[in-house]
Amino acid sequence: MFDIIPQKGGLSIVEGFYCDGVNCGMREGDQPDLAFIRSDAPCDISAVFTTNRFQAAPIRHFQRYGEDFQTDFILINAKNANAMTGKRGIEDIDSIFAAIGTKHPMTNPVMSSTGVIGYPLPVEKIVAGFDTFDLNARDSAHAAEAIMTTDQFPKELAFEVALEDGTGFRIAGICKGAGMINPAMATMLCFIVTDADIPKAEMDSLLRESVDHSFNTISVDGDTSTNDTVMLMTSRKSGNYQKEAFKMALDMLTHQLAMMILRDGEGANKVVAFEVSGAKTKEDAIKASKALSNSLLVKTALFGEDPNWGRIASTIGASGIACDEELLVIRYEDLIVYSREFPVLDAAREAKAAKIMQKSSYKIHCDIGLGEYSHTSYGCDLSYDYVKINADYRT
Amino acid sequence: MFDIIPQKGGLSIVEGFYCDGVNCGMREGDQPDLAFIRSDAPCDISAVFTTNRFQAAPIRHFQRYGEDFQTDFILINAKNANAMTGKRGIEDIDSIFAAIGTKHPMTNPVMSSTGVIGYPLPVEKIVAGFDTFDLNARDSAHAAEAIMTTDQFPKELAFEVALEDGTGFRIAGICKGAGMINPAMATMLCFIVTDADIPKAEMDSLLRESVDHSFNTISVDGDTSTNDTVMLMTSRKSGNYQKEAFKMALDMLTHQLAMMILRDGEGANKVVAFEVSGAKTKEDAIKASKALSNSLLVKTALFGEDPNWGRIASTIGASGIACDEELLVIRYEDLIVYSREFPVLDAAREAKAAKIMQKSSYKIHCDIGLGEYSHTSYGCDLSYDYVKINADYRT
Repeated sequence: MFDIIPQKGGLSIVEGFYCDGVNCGMREGDQPDLAFIRSDAPCDISAVFTTNRFQAAPIRHFQRYGEDFQTDFILINAKNANAMTGKRGIEDIDSIFAAIGTKHPMTNPVMSSTGVIGYPLPVEKIVAGFDTFDLNARDSAHAAEAIMTTDQFPKELAFEVALEDGTGFRIAGICKGAGMINPAMATMLCFIVTDADIPKAEMDSLLRESVDHSFNTISVDGDTSTNDTVMLMTSRKSGNYQKEAFKMALDMLTHQLAMMILRDGEGANKVVAFEVSGAKTKEDAIKASKALSNSLLVKTALFGEDPNWGRIASTIGASGIACDEELLVIRYEDLIVYSREFPVLDAAREAKAAKIMQKSSYKIHCDIGLGEYSHTSYGCDLSYDYVKINADYRT
Repeated sequence: MFDIIPQKGGLSIVEGFYCDGVNCGMREGDQPDLAFIRSDAPCDISAVFTTNRFQAAPIRHFQRYGEDFQTDFILINAKNANAMTGKRGIEDIDSIFAAIGTKHPMTNPVMSSTGVIGYPLPVEKIVAGFDTFDLNARDSAHAAEAIMTTDQFPKELAFEVALEDGTGFRIAGICKGAGMINPAMATMLCFIVTDADIPKAEMDSLLRESVDHSFNTISVDGDTSTNDTVMLMTSRKSGNYQKEAFKMALDMLTHQLAMMILRDGEGANKVVAFEVSGAKTKEDAIKASKALSNSLLVKTALFGEDPNWGRIASTIGASGIACDEELLVIRYEDLIVYSREFPVLDAAREAKAAKIMQKSSYKIHCDIGLGEYSHTSYGCDLSYDYVKINADYRT
C-alpha cells in the first residue's frame, strides 16, 4: 500500500532541482518567456517527442546526445519554436550553450522551445536573459508561466508518495499547451522531475506508457506540432522507489496535467470524455473515440449544447470501424439518447440530454455492441474564440 | 474535336426529364423542401454513395433494387436525412411510393434525403406534397432550391456538347452541400441527367472517376455524412455519344459543382487549392493535400489572412508522409514563402504573401522534393460563422 498526496509548490518540492523564469524580451510585457530547470548533479533523463516529421531543432539537438545520457540543465523558451530552421537551428542552440556555459558549467545541456515556426532564435536576447536568472531559485510558478503560449493559466502539479515502510519520494511537473493538441502525442511541453530511485529502463518505459494514456488521449484541434516534448528527470535523492507507486503517481500526474491542457484548450469551455466500448478491435475503439474528439461537427454541437446525437452516430459511421446501427447505443452520462429500441429522442429525454450538455465536463459513451475493446479520448468544444485565437495567432 | 458550351436552365435543357420543387411543410416559410426528377421512360441510373457505415435508409432502399436497374422517378427531400432510422426508414419510403404510385405509375422509384439524423420521415406531409407537384414542369431552379439545407444559394449547371459531326448531347446537374463536406466522398447530394447514348458500364466507371476527381477532392470540415449521393441518369434521347467528350463534360460539371459547394462552405469566405507535388507516392500526395485542407490551424490562418507558413509545414510533417525540411518548398501562388534557401519570410515577401491571402481564391503549393507524385485538394477557411451555423444547426 502507498499514499499519493497532492502538494503545493510544483517542481520546487523535489529535492535536487532548481528552476526560475524571467522575461528576456521575446514576449512583450513582464510575463517571463525564458525558464530553466537544473539539477545540482547530472541526472538520468527520459523523453518522448512529437511524431511530426519536421522535428524542431531542440529535439534534434537532444537526440544528438544519443540514447542514454545525463544532463543537469534544461533551458526552455516561449514565443519561438526554433522549428523549420535547418542546421542553423541547432547551431543557435550550440551558440547559446557555449556562451552561458562559460558563466555556469553544464553537463549535456538540453533545450526546449515553443512558439512560432520558421524564425531563428534571438540568441543574444536569450544569452542576456540567462544573466537575470536566479540559478538557486526554486520558482516553479515563474517557470510554468515562462513556457506558456496561448495558455490562459500556468500548469503545475506535485505529489508526495508515501510508501508503506514510512519512506517515500516526490514527483512534480509543469506543462504548457492550449492549441495544436492532438492524440498523436499531445502537442505540448511537459517537464517532470522526481527524486525517486528509479532504474533508467523503467523511466523510459513508464514514461512512454504514461504519455499514451494521458497526453495522447486528448485533442483540442487535431493538429500535431513540431515541438511536442515530455521529459522526465530524476535526482534519485530520496533513495526510495517502488514501481507500482511510481507508476500510479506518474500516471496521475500526466493525466491531470493533460486535463489541465484540455480545460485550457483554445476557446474551449467544456471537457468531454468520449468513451467507446464494445468495439471489435482495440484499433477500432481508438479510431472511433479519436474521431469523435476531433470532429468539427461534434465539437460545434458541444459548444451549442445541442443534443444532436446524429452527429455522434455519423462520426462513428464515418470513422471506418466495424459497426451496425442496430447494435449501437449512445449515452450522455447514463442517459440513452440512441438505441434501436429508443431511436427517437422524445421531448423529456431531449431535455435531460440538453441539461447534461450544459455541464462543464461530462461523458459521451458509445457502445458498438460488437466486441470487448474500449478506449476513451478526451476533447473539448469549438467556440468562436478558437477561431479568433487562431486567426490572429502571430499578431 | 468537340465543344462544351455552358447553358442556362439547369436540368430543364435535357430531353426527356421533368423536375419541380414544392414546399410540403417540412421547412418553415415558402422555400421548397420536396423535389422530383422524373423521366418519361425508364432510364439507366448510376450512383455513388457515402462511405459512412451508417448509410441512410434511402441509400439502402436504392441498393435493394440490385446492381443494374432502370428507374423513372427520383424523389428528394430536405430537412430530414432518414438516417439511423432502421427498418422503419425503408418501410416509410415504401409507404410513400405505395401512396403516390396510385396517382402516378412509376418504375423502381428511388429516394434521396438530407437533413437531421434520427427522426422518422413525415410520410403524410410528403405524400400530400406530391399532389402539389406539376409533374410536367421543367423547373430546375425550384428543384435545386428544394434540396438545400444550410446552402446559401442553389447550385445547378448545364452543358451542351457539340460533336465534330454536327450532332451532340446535353448534360446537366443540380447539387446541394455546404457542411459535412469531406474528401471521403464529398458530403452532398448531386443529381445529373443526360441525353447521351452512353453504355451503362461507362456511366458507372466515368461517374466513379469523376466523383474521385471532383467531390472527393473538397473539404469543408472533414466530416462525412450518412447520406452522400451522386446519381447520373440518361434518357439516351439524343442518340449521340462520344466517350472523350462525355467524360470531359461530366468532369467539368462535377468539378464546377464541387467548387460551388466549397464556395458555399458553411461560413467560408475563401476557396484554396492545396497542391502537393514531388511526393514519394501517390498515397503520400493525397494524404498531405487532404491533411492541409482539413487542418483547423491552416483553416483559421486562411481566415485570418496570416501568411503563417509554419502551419502548412507542420501539417505536412504531421501527416505521416515521407518528407524532409531541407527539400520542402512552399509557395503561395508563385511566391516562395519557405525553402531551405529562403527559410525566413522577410518583410517584403511577407507583404506579398499577405496580399495573396486576401484573394477569395488562390493556390498553396507544397513541393516535397522526393518523387514525382502530386495531388490537389480544395479547402476553405474556417470562420466564426462556421461555429455559429453548426452550434445552432437544429434550431
